[in-house]
Amino acid sequence: MELDLPDVLAEVGDAFARYEAALISNDVATLGELFRNDPRTIRYGIGENLYGYDEIQGFRAARSPVGLMRKTMRTVITAYGRDMAVASTLFTRDSAPGKIGRQMQTWVRFAEGWRIVAAHVSVIDEPRTGA
Amino acid sequence: MELDLPDVLAEVGDAFARYEAALISNDVATLGELFRNDPRTIRYGIGENLYGYDEIQGFRAARSPVGLMRKTMRTVITAYGRDMAVASTLFTRDSAPGKIGRQMQTWVRFAEGWRIVAAHVSVIDEPRTGA
Repeated sequence: MELDLPDVLAEVGDAFARYEAALISNDVATLGELFRNDPRTIRYGIGENLYGYDEIQGFRAARSPVGLMRKTMRTVITAYGRDMAVASTLFTRDSAPGKIGRQMQTWVRFAEGWRIVAAHVSVIDEPRTGA
Repeated sequence: MELDLPDVLAEVGDAFARYEAALISNDVATLGELFRNDPRTIRYGIGENLYGYDEIQGFRAARSPVGLMRKTMRTVITAYGRDMAVASTLFTRDSAPGKIGRQMQTWVRFAEGWRIVAAHVSVIDEPRTGA
């Protein structure tokens, strides 16, 4: 298996950037497009565990659009072969000093394009070590 | 891309079970075997952000073996093609009532076998919705 093929990394990087822009502007349509529409898609969020695309979309529709702006750091995208990649990033929000967010997404290439099949977002106190 | 091919699911299910057994018994050697030995491997843990296999192994070696027992629930393994799968599970510990853990792992098949290339573990208060 070839890792980090440049054209694959470029494609996933574009998709990741689209997702980030949609997230901070609460563009629910684009967020919905970029998650795989399948009951097997899972998203563990900061305060919720969502199994299946319908639960994820229900959460998005009900979410407050306030305070979603954030700053990302230590973003790493790694592509495994031509059809799969993992995107990991830390983030902070001005509204949450002393806290650090972690977002990890698994992206898969389908006929319709790159889609997130699994995501996990959490927030912790600034770690003592490791970051 | 074919999803959930039975032989692939069986292989990843075995690897996932090995990981769980190693985790609760703090079998550091097996945990180390099952993570991909690569600087691009990432593990966001309950209280730490670990970039690269060396940081992950350093954390394992220093970890207290006390209180790792846990009960898993809502475990879902989904295989994308023949070489990639995501394993997601919730968990609880008797020592942390009212809390729910979430673990998400991305597994990739390499020449040496199935390995975790990315993992994210977090603990939250029992959600009001979604789980």
